[in-house]
Amino acid sequence: MKIVLDAMGSDNAPTVEVEGAIQAAQEFGHDLILVGDEARIIRELGKHRFSSERITVKHASEVIDMHDPAAISVRRKRDSSIVVGMDLLKKNQADAFISAGNTGAVVCAATLSLRLLPGIERPGIAIVIPTLKGVSVIIDVGANITPKPIHLLQYGIMADAFSRYILGKSNPTVGLLNVGEEESKGTEFIKEAHTLLSESKLNFEGNIEGRDVYAGKVDIILCDGFVGNVILKISESVADTIMQSLMQEIKADFLATIGAVLSSSAFHELKRKMDYSERGGAPLLGVDGRCIISHGSSSAKAIKNAIRTASEFVKQDVNKHIVEELESY
Amino acid sequence: MKIVLDAMGSDNAPTVEVEGAIQAAQEFGHDLILVGDEARIIRELGKHRFSSERITVKHASEVIDMHDPAAISVRRKRDSSIVVGMDLLKKNQADAFISAGNTGAVVCAATLSLRLLPGIERPGIAIVIPTLKGVSVIIDVGANITPKPIHLLQYGIMADAFSRYILGKSNPTVGLLNVGEEESKGTEFIKEAHTLLSESKLNFEGNIEGRDVYAGKVDIILCDGFVGNVILKISESVADTIMQSLMQEIKADFLATIGAVLSSSAFHELKRKMDYSERGGAPLLGVDGRCIISHGSSSAKAIKNAIRTASEFVKQDVNKHIVEELESY
Repeated sequence: MKIVLDAMGSDNAPTVEVEGAIQAAQEFGHDLILVGDEARIIRELGKHRFSSERITVKHASEVIDMHDPAAISVRRKRDSSIVVGMDLLKKNQADAFISAGNTGAVVCAATLSLRLLPGIERPGIAIVIPTLKGVSVIIDVGANITPKPIHLLQYGIMADAFSRYILGKSNPTVGLLNVGEEESKGTEFIKEAHTLLSESKLNFEGNIEGRDVYAGKVDIILCDGFVGNVILKISESVADTIMQSLMQEIKADFLATIGAVLSSSAFHELKRKMDYSERGGAPLLGVDGRCIISHGSSSAKAIKNAIRTASEFVKQDVNKHIVEELESY
Repeated sequence: MKIVLDAMGSDNAPTVEVEGAIQAAQEFGHDLILVGDEARIIRELGKHRFSSERITVKHASEVIDMHDPAAISVRRKRDSSIVVGMDLLKKNQADAFISAGNTGAVVCAATLSLRLLPGIERPGIAIVIPTLKGVSVIIDVGANITPKPIHLLQYGIMADAFSRYILGKSNPTVGLLNVGEEESKGTEFIKEAHTLLSESKLNFEGNIEGRDVYAGKVDIILCDGFVGNVILKISESVADTIMQSLMQEIKADFLATIGAVLSSSAFHELKRKMDYSERGGAPLLGVDGRCIISHGSSSAKAIKNAIRTASEFVKQDVNKHIVEELESY
């Protein structure tokens, strides 16, 4: 298996990309192509001991940064790591592409270069979240901020295949994120999506509310990319705020400090559960290729786990299952 | 000061309403009118020792429950506690109205009965949230799920007055909740709202992202009622999930259990900070009257604090300040 990694994407590029790639090559035995500034990547590689045959470097002279407008920069920066890397995937010189860079640019480059799967009109980013009952998937978290109701049905079908073949769920339940459970609630967009989902073959459980998401009420949560993006960032922020506030309180109290030391195993375990880097990147579903998007603040471990996610995506041939399911509609 | 309390609104009505009203009457010295099923309210009142002169009961034979469609039930259930209570406010027989009942019905009854302040086209529910820097206000959390850009400007002006006169902030900063900080990001709705806010007299700091909300980056967070409702419920759920998960981890480990006992003061302090019932209800801004909406799962303390919020609203005459500010536009 050969995986292309945008080495210039994350906030700490190319350091974490190089480190994550070396770990993945050693642990999983995959071949990796690092795309980006060759001199910088080689300098980073030189800091590590590793068997070099599994890792190659493909030079790309430009970088699309976080603040570049997505569509324009994909068209103009033809020698950027995102465009060059995606091109390798398009030409079948690799099995999957991973980037922790500008999400909009990755979505745009993937859509333009790889094209969409037959039956899919818009791609969606799916993210796996921890819940009280295990894990669930939210789609879309930002590929498409103004979807049509039919796109939510397509997201549901794609996330169903993802949940079955990657998360091993046999009949995943689907919920539509709304301001109330009643069918009469919500915008016209939500009501139309509700009708389409009710008539689908998905295991649709109707509307769910914000409070149901982390309670794990359903396996798949459907929402537009605006709402999905906001709730993803809010959730991370709430978690951080709570842990920081608790630590402030603990530091202010001597007994509490001793208590926290004794409880540290519990804190570490919770941190591990909540840590997105344990789960790897988020697949961009709907494009005709395997494309994984990682967090801008990814660590080397997050990159390594994104590579694992990409390889599972290849092995399980999720896209084939999505297309088969769509054909039955 | 005389405050009307819908005694039938919460999940535990009228028990918590009666208890909260008695506490408020004793602590704050306000007169309270409890509206609802007279026999049940009197039975609840009979369980407490209190000076009866401050609390009166107004009978209402019907209840609008959580699952009733808002607009229809306000029109049909003319003898419901929400409609009867709002009518007392409209006839100037009271200074403020509080309900922990069906939010949509309260918004609808308030809009129909009290009418809107001059210059306001849609009401918005403002909620005070704890942040790393203190408190901030989110508006709207569910009064209006399909606002126009101009309504967000109106929310901003109302929340500005609320922040100045109730939260004591001298020049509150305002942020527009979006998927990115750049002006080019977001839906057409967001971009138009951004333009209106940039041209306003508000202390507008531009777009903010989900992660900025609980970090306390701005004093006032503007969003449509759909997004606001979802993020409010998600935030509560994330907080609950984290605390439950932490407790599970702690219980599984003997040393951690001892540690948690030692740290319990820190846990309690955090819980108190996060507890919405400490902050009282959420004002419905924009209606020509003082109307406070409480959480359906309110405790007696939450009801008492909602009564305190209502009385501050009356004392500070927030609506007068809103109207003055709007006149300058």
